[in-house]
Amino acid sequence: MKAQIISIGDEILIGQIVNTNAAWIANYLTSEGIECTKITTVSDSKESIVTALKNAVDNSELVIITGGLGPTNDDITKHTLCSFFNDKLEKNNDVLSDIKKFFKQKGRSNILDLNKDQALVPSKSKVIRNPLGTAPGIWLSQNNCEVLALPGVPYEMKILVEHFFREFKKNRKLDSIVQKTIFIRNIPESQLAFMLKEWEASINKDIKLAYLPSPGVVRLRLSGISNSKAKIESLIKCELDKLSSIVKYDDNSKDLNQLVYDLCKIKCISISVAESCTSGLIASSLSQVPGSSNSFLGGIICYSDLSKINLLGISPDLIKKKSSVSKDVCFEMAQNVRNKFNSDFSIATTGYAGPTGGTEDNPVGTVFITINSLKGSITEKILFSGDRKIILNQVRIKALELLINEIKKYE
Amino acid sequence: MKAQIISIGDEILIGQIVNTNAAWIANYLTSEGIECTKITTVSDSKESIVTALKNAVDNSELVIITGGLGPTNDDITKHTLCSFFNDKLEKNNDVLSDIKKFFKQKGRSNILDLNKDQALVPSKSKVIRNPLGTAPGIWLSQNNCEVLALPGVPYEMKILVEHFFREFKKNRKLDSIVQKTIFIRNIPESQLAFMLKEWEASINKDIKLAYLPSPGVVRLRLSGISNSKAKIESLIKCELDKLSSIVKYDDNSKDLNQLVYDLCKIKCISISVAESCTSGLIASSLSQVPGSSNSFLGGIICYSDLSKINLLGISPDLIKKKSSVSKDVCFEMAQNVRNKFNSDFSIATTGYAGPTGGTEDNPVGTVFITINSLKGSITEKILFSGDRKIILNQVRIKALELLINEIKKYE
Repeated sequence: MKAQIISIGDEILIGQIVNTNAAWIANYLTSEGIECTKITTVSDSKESIVTALKNAVDNSELVIITGGLGPTNDDITKHTLCSFFNDKLEKNNDVLSDIKKFFKQKGRSNILDLNKDQALVPSKSKVIRNPLGTAPGIWLSQNNCEVLALPGVPYEMKILVEHFFREFKKNRKLDSIVQKTIFIRNIPESQLAFMLKEWEASINKDIKLAYLPSPGVVRLRLSGISNSKAKIESLIKCELDKLSSIVKYDDNSKDLNQLVYDLCKIKCISISVAESCTSGLIASSLSQVPGSSNSFLGGIICYSDLSKINLLGISPDLIKKKSSVSKDVCFEMAQNVRNKFNSDFSIATTGYAGPTGGTEDNPVGTVFITINSLKGSITEKILFSGDRKIILNQVRIKALELLINEIKKYE
Repeated sequence: MKAQIISIGDEILIGQIVNTNAAWIANYLTSEGIECTKITTVSDSKESIVTALKNAVDNSELVIITGGLGPTNDDITKHTLCSFFNDKLEKNNDVLSDIKKFFKQKGRSNILDLNKDQALVPSKSKVIRNPLGTAPGIWLSQNNCEVLALPGVPYEMKILVEHFFREFKKNRKLDSIVQKTIFIRNIPESQLAFMLKEWEASINKDIKLAYLPSPGVVRLRLSGISNSKAKIESLIKCELDKLSSIVKYDDNSKDLNQLVYDLCKIKCISISVAESCTSGLIASSLSQVPGSSNSFLGGIICYSDLSKINLLGISPDLIKKKSSVSKDVCFEMAQNVRNKFNSDFSIATTGYAGPTGGTEDNPVGTVFITINSLKGSITEKILFSGDRKIILNQVRIKALELLINEIKKYE
């Protein structure tokens, strides 16, 4: 089954917000075995919505529209749907009672006409009732294509998609989409493609291959669609078996924070951090996993030299002699923070994230990362590229990868 | 001038990545006075690219395409452009020398044919040379529409857009797009729309109004396009003057981190943080602004009780008596970290981000935030809702808002 997503909203077209709704819906569709073939963002104007809708209805069997269902004058999706489906608005009493209930829960007594008007829906539509807001989902059909219009507020949209699919999947047999992403580190994309040339040429025609390069790692995605999930899974497994004799890859698609958390739990290990350039980025990353306080103890953000001296006990002479961006200072940071927190492992980072700073030997992008434990210490000096945000995120990823490697070796 | 953006990539259509490139380009276009009327994401297939391109070329004067310019087999944009523009690929020696230079800088000596092939570009195209990667920007024209194809790697795409516009703006007079977003807090969208009904009806026809609701705040965006920037600015100012007599609004659209940075600079203020539940999130947020090390000194992440005791000198009795999630502990954290870093201001956070934890009095979502300075201290207890990530981000925003308020009062 093919689907299209239409996002309505000038805020996306002027770049004021990033279209995360479309990404979430696309991911949901894929997990349900539905192929999303196009995502279109158009402005809050009747003409552009109709054009996009016509194209989508002609070329797919499911269209999900988000945005423009609010109570204000700039919300025109409902009226546009009526005009497209040759329909008119009609009061829906279920929705009206939901709206009244919603206001009561919020302790608001003055229900305005504007609010009550949200119970007006196209007469031919089914509604998907909204437990978290006042605008219901609107479900219409035309020429074997189902059209679902949803409010743009992310948490309302998500629950309505889930409720819609409960209905939608009844009496429908959907295909399965299987996809597997693997990680190949430290081989540039072009070189990897060269190495995999023969393998790639021999891949089963039902399996699609994609290269997703990013600094330091290429993700390879293998995917297929079929009415037999087992068939595609077995084809992908077979291709990966062949691949494993050509190149070393990591098929752990787990989030790095979760990986650290799981390893710490298995090995009963605690962690602390001393962050200069990353300034809390690694700590906030580690703490994203619920329950992380069992292994992650905390850290010191020593953004200034003085804080390295006063809080971490780094010698001012060492900083003067070697600079605060140096292997020696990074080592001391990791060692001292581990002692202060009495943790099994520690991570330290110091470097130049840019855009200014840096020296001839250590230009912007140079970062030292140390992983320290009772068993010893490793420090890597790496030159990252990109803007400040990209550099810092790469440092975070690299530090967690180094930590995982060291924890794996730890007995 | 009207523009369209076409994003090519299955990774967007399956929801594996969020389309941040399109948001960045849309924002850039707007700032240049170009109206982005449509953003289309299509798969890496010739047919869907050609269909989107045809529609874009027919309906706009500028089309920016990203993705599919890499060296691997799944990258088909260049071939598709040749077929659309009835052109053929031809070696560009400037690009070839850029590629050789790029490899030399990276210390890689083996330039593969795959890499050299990136110097093949459509013969009718101008190239925008890429200082950060191997795929150049490709610029083609047809029927008064300019088409620019760029690689999808964000930092390469961004610099190529900037370089392209330097050329593109020569001999072209572009309109100005002016937009102003204001923030109205604690009035629900529908109630606000009701309050603003008359004002809205009387708005000058050259000004467009949009409501952008989110929990606790409605953003109102007023925008207009004209060859006279001053004219639109004055119209918007006039509407806002009228608005200010109806409702109280905040017109500061600056990023919170930047606001803190600017205020600190003006008032010569330094900051430190003691983060328990937010675990470095506030620190990493503050350090996102280049040059932030001038005012942000660092902090202590005291994720565990023991670290609150050992690193921040909180009394174990106080924690036992009041719990580590309490007003008193939060106050002490802020006071002590400020003393340790000798900063003018400090922020402390402690709370239950969930999904587990919490007590009857302080359920999941309860967070204490203290802002401390020489002049005194304020602590707020707030019950946030949402999942762990949403709660922590709300804490970050609230803490920065409280800090800004306190710094503003500080003389």
